[in-house]
Amino acid sequence: MAKTNPPDGGGSDANDNTFVRHRVALPPKEGLLKEFKSVVQETFFHDAPLRDFKDQTASKKVLLGIQAVFPIIGWAREYNLRKLRGDVISGLTIASLCIPQDIGYAKLANLDPKYGLYSSFVPPLVYAGMGSSRDIAIGPVAVVSLLLGTLCQAVIDPNENPAEYLRLAFTATFFAGVFEAGLGFLRLGFLIDFLSHAAVVGFMGGAAITIALQQLKGFLGIKKFTKHTDIVSVMQSVFAAARHGWNWQTILIGASFLTFLLVAKYIGKKNKKLFWVPAIAPLISVVVSTFFVFITRADKQGVQIVRHIDQGINPISVSKLYFSGKYFTEGIRIGAVAGMVALTEAVAIARTFAAMKDYQIDGNKEMIALGTMNVVGSLTSCYIATGSFSRSAVNYMAGCHTAVSNIVMAIVVALTLVFITPLFKYTPNAILAAIIISAVLGLIDIDAAVLIWKIDKLDFAACMGAFLGVVFVSVEIGLLISVVISFAKILLQVTRPRTAVLGKLPRTNVYRNTLQYPDAAKIPGILIIRVDSAIYFSNSNYVRERILRWLREEEEKAKAADMPAIKFLIIEMSPVTDIDTSGIHSIEELHKSLEKKEIQLILANPGPVVTEKLHASRFADEIGEENIFLSVGDAVAICSPKLAEQQA
Amino acid sequence: MAKTNPPDGGGSDANDNTFVRHRVALPPKEGLLKEFKSVVQETFFHDAPLRDFKDQTASKKVLLGIQAVFPIIGWAREYNLRKLRGDVISGLTIASLCIPQDIGYAKLANLDPKYGLYSSFVPPLVYAGMGSSRDIAIGPVAVVSLLLGTLCQAVIDPNENPAEYLRLAFTATFFAGVFEAGLGFLRLGFLIDFLSHAAVVGFMGGAAITIALQQLKGFLGIKKFTKHTDIVSVMQSVFAAARHGWNWQTILIGASFLTFLLVAKYIGKKNKKLFWVPAIAPLISVVVSTFFVFITRADKQGVQIVRHIDQGINPISVSKLYFSGKYFTEGIRIGAVAGMVALTEAVAIARTFAAMKDYQIDGNKEMIALGTMNVVGSLTSCYIATGSFSRSAVNYMAGCHTAVSNIVMAIVVALTLVFITPLFKYTPNAILAAIIISAVLGLIDIDAAVLIWKIDKLDFAACMGAFLGVVFVSVEIGLLISVVISFAKILLQVTRPRTAVLGKLPRTNVYRNTLQYPDAAKIPGILIIRVDSAIYFSNSNYVRERILRWLREEEEKAKAADMPAIKFLIIEMSPVTDIDTSGIHSIEELHKSLEKKEIQLILANPGPVVTEKLHASRFADEIGEENIFLSVGDAVAICSPKLAEQQA
Repeated sequence: MAKTNPPDGGGSDANDNTFVRHRVALPPKEGLLKEFKSVVQETFFHDAPLRDFKDQTASKKVLLGIQAVFPIIGWAREYNLRKLRGDVISGLTIASLCIPQDIGYAKLANLDPKYGLYSSFVPPLVYAGMGSSRDIAIGPVAVVSLLLGTLCQAVIDPNENPAEYLRLAFTATFFAGVFEAGLGFLRLGFLIDFLSHAAVVGFMGGAAITIALQQLKGFLGIKKFTKHTDIVSVMQSVFAAARHGWNWQTILIGASFLTFLLVAKYIGKKNKKLFWVPAIAPLISVVVSTFFVFITRADKQGVQIVRHIDQGINPISVSKLYFSGKYFTEGIRIGAVAGMVALTEAVAIARTFAAMKDYQIDGNKEMIALGTMNVVGSLTSCYIATGSFSRSAVNYMAGCHTAVSNIVMAIVVALTLVFITPLFKYTPNAILAAIIISAVLGLIDIDAAVLIWKIDKLDFAACMGAFLGVVFVSVEIGLLISVVISFAKILLQVTRPRTAVLGKLPRTNVYRNTLQYPDAAKIPGILIIRVDSAIYFSNSNYVRERILRWLREEEEKAKAADMPAIKFLIIEMSPVTDIDTSGIHSIEELHKSLEKKEIQLILANPGPVVTEKLHASRFADEIGEENIFLSVGDAVAICSPKLAEQQA
Repeated sequence: MAKTNPPDGGGSDANDNTFVRHRVALPPKEGLLKEFKSVVQETFFHDAPLRDFKDQTASKKVLLGIQAVFPIIGWAREYNLRKLRGDVISGLTIASLCIPQDIGYAKLANLDPKYGLYSSFVPPLVYAGMGSSRDIAIGPVAVVSLLLGTLCQAVIDPNENPAEYLRLAFTATFFAGVFEAGLGFLRLGFLIDFLSHAAVVGFMGGAAITIALQQLKGFLGIKKFTKHTDIVSVMQSVFAAARHGWNWQTILIGASFLTFLLVAKYIGKKNKKLFWVPAIAPLISVVVSTFFVFITRADKQGVQIVRHIDQGINPISVSKLYFSGKYFTEGIRIGAVAGMVALTEAVAIARTFAAMKDYQIDGNKEMIALGTMNVVGSLTSCYIATGSFSRSAVNYMAGCHTAVSNIVMAIVVALTLVFITPLFKYTPNAILAAIIISAVLGLIDIDAAVLIWKIDKLDFAACMGAFLGVVFVSVEIGLLISVVISFAKILLQVTRPRTAVLGKLPRTNVYRNTLQYPDAAKIPGILIIRVDSAIYFSNSNYVRERILRWLREEEEKAKAADMPAIKFLIIEMSPVTDIDTSGIHSIEELHKSLEKKEIQLILANPGPVVTEKLHASRFADEIGEENIFLSVGDAVAICSPKLAEQQA
């Protein structure tokens, strides 16, 4: 690599006190195919999913392939009794939590309670064979149930046409699965990253409040209740029913058990070792209240009860799917929306716990597992299942080691379906409402919202937009707001990159943002601007105009302070990782504008891609190789003496 | 600002041979309102449109306000005879060019020729009062005419219901204007930057070929012609008509004049001073060929002629707009699409010429002017007008100074409408076809396509996608492909930012990408990674996983080479201009993963926004202030001795 000395050989405060000008290097030329390959790899295979397959025999490769689809084959060989003990305990714990929740969640989806239990049987078994998360607990969840219920009832009234409604729900579940598995199979898993964390926090909080509000029906024993989910309609329903619709016996039962559940939750929160207290509290509530109602026959006093749950495990539902007609396309639409939300939740949970135990999750493989489980579920009378945050946390704390805890849970649920369902007859609806309320309160993450407020105000706006949209309008609108705000943020990012004027930090050769480092000194006659983004068509005009505005402002300041006029404009290109044709055009136009003002444009530290494109477009020749420097320090070292010459 | 010395006081090759550790500064705290104000300013008012209003008296402000809407008030005061001379010459030149073009373009929009002339009368006058570009020539253009024609005829058949078709075209024009002005008024002008330059080049080239193909009807004198615009259908039409439909007299006339036009074009290209040759060639062709047909009565031999153009200037068309019903919504849709394309073309032209003459264009004000002109146009029997690239270039070369050239052109067109239209009766359609073919050939920018190929392969894919979409399917599909590819590129950019491993350049304290600078040396036991983008929800997972992958790869290399294990991971944050809650989460998770491997995470040079957020989220405390450095050099200077200690 050639080094050239500056014309005057000194006068600069460069490194090691001797000036060494390092040339800006062109990266080694890559072939077109290689370049294309690397883009494809980073986009779709950035996690190098095939790295284990390298340097293996053919038979080993086949085995690894099967193991990639069914991770159970991998970890089953190292399974032992110690792990089994942990898995059985955690499996039993989450089973006791999920059974009452399932019955309640099915109602959110406007389905019979048994479908909630069905969905906690088949999907967890499928997931256990194919999933790579060791901590996730699979089953129906509140938000997805509510979303599926809201979307389906807009198409078919569940009270008038329960059979058709059920078929639509299965169809939506099928396509949610196809959609999830398809995203994973096509390695498009990164698409779910487009739902921002902040929007998800807001959406979940809003959904939790909406679900809790819906429970007022069961909790207060109201018979005539609105079909809308927004807070205004629900409150109107509640107050309209106040005079004759509230049932004091129901309220008494509900309120006492809700208090019990919340106290149990508080205990579990205060003492992590007592995590099992809130985990089994719901089942205890169900048993005690069912027994109580059975003894007192409170159902004759207007306390609403579950009445009947069919006995037996999941029937086959293949013939119930719509594959043509109007409900077919509606099923695809609902499946895509609900599937996306279910996927976001499950992947977030899998990632969170994987990070806590420090193992890797392959997002795309995870999606294939989740999708397959929903496809199989839709054929066996299940509706959309996904990872439940509350149950996964309990699973983790109860000491699960592998997905065997899901198998244990599924077996318990199956036994419940076969033997115990008749006993749920006298379970009061108010208890289910209390269980759901206490469960969804955990989805309202005020700490996260406060943190978001502290870190990023725009994120907070997205969070509140989604929250208020769900609470005051509807779940779909809230979801739409989340997506739109997330995209708007991305677009804002690429359209309006930051720029900064740099100055020299005293006693160093380091140039930094003068707004961040007020002691960084600007150099008279030289304006140094850093552009903080790739320069693409979406921002190239803005960047050019913004640089010209900085120049205008600095020129005015220089004039006012009677300082020498600006003769050199150095653009620090370190953060400019890429440039496209529009970007090159913009810099060319900037160069022309500056030439008219007799200001020399200088580029400092263009990266490999930018350097290559500057040469490919011949702009490097136009501006002159000698005006492209390795660093701002080098550029200033060359410009300063020239400036002194001009002024002399 | 505090400086701390490193614990061991030296051993580093930092600046000036004495180690000064500069602390990473927190930027001065800004209020929430101020922060919000600055975001709004950069997004919507980055060009500081009100800067002239500062420190002015109230009456002066009002005057400036009026002048902002009508720039003509500003420049009219400095207008003089010299400028008038240039404007009159250029106005006459573009008038001679636009009259034959207008008649042809109206046919592309399935409208009578007179509507093309109408659209070159009112809109240029409105623009002259409100527009800020001095070089743009306003009127109908080929691509927008074709687009309007294609979109409208999909709704109403122009042959069966010409009156309704006309009303739809006016309605679309009205809403195109409302849409354009609305974007400008709401300062959303940056939205048009989302159509990438590459996609526009491809779209324009494809549209040019499609338009040229459409001219084969007039050029060959074919009577039965396909309604589709794709190349396959058109060629089938042409060959199906070959046996009996081609008219040799028509072909003879068309071919001779097309040769004449192309030769004229070639002369103008070779000698810039003869730019007026191709500019007046079309009018000469029209005059000569019309006279020739009139003398020979070739129209009786099957040569198709214009036949009749109504005399008189634009009638009022207010009552013809649809403001309700099906065609109302269709009009809005078509107007939005065609308006966006028209806007993109006009703003690109205005910017190009403004850059050449070095004056500023306010994109948003420009849009208001263009929108207003189309709204007024739709009320006076015009269809969508915009800036024509070919006529603007002629205008520029003919020496125009101000928008007065548009006024001159409009007056000439009006005089033509009043006095000369009957003379066009015998103008052969083949001449109009030849004029359009020679005009649109200029839209096929092969040089630009080659440059795009050289600079950016992905841009080239966008370009070809748009091109092939227009040529082989339809204009709308081509446009859709352009938009989709443009957005896909933006999303790719924000999802998959680049990362690089840095090494130290010999004899400097500068750290650079080891792939670009092969002589940059990695430091044993320390891995330095630069992340080249803001870390947002859309890429935070990728960034974390990619860093872990770099670490894994480097650890394997270190192991193979029997080098010390990696103990410090330095992330160079200079290009990380912003971070959101998801990004903070990701870095926290990375920190936890590294802690388990006993690797210390170190951040170098976080910018002002990132520094602030690291503190707001308490992550700065978690990782420890002492692990956040001003530069990679500083970080290495501290880590190296620690590393030596550990190994000793």
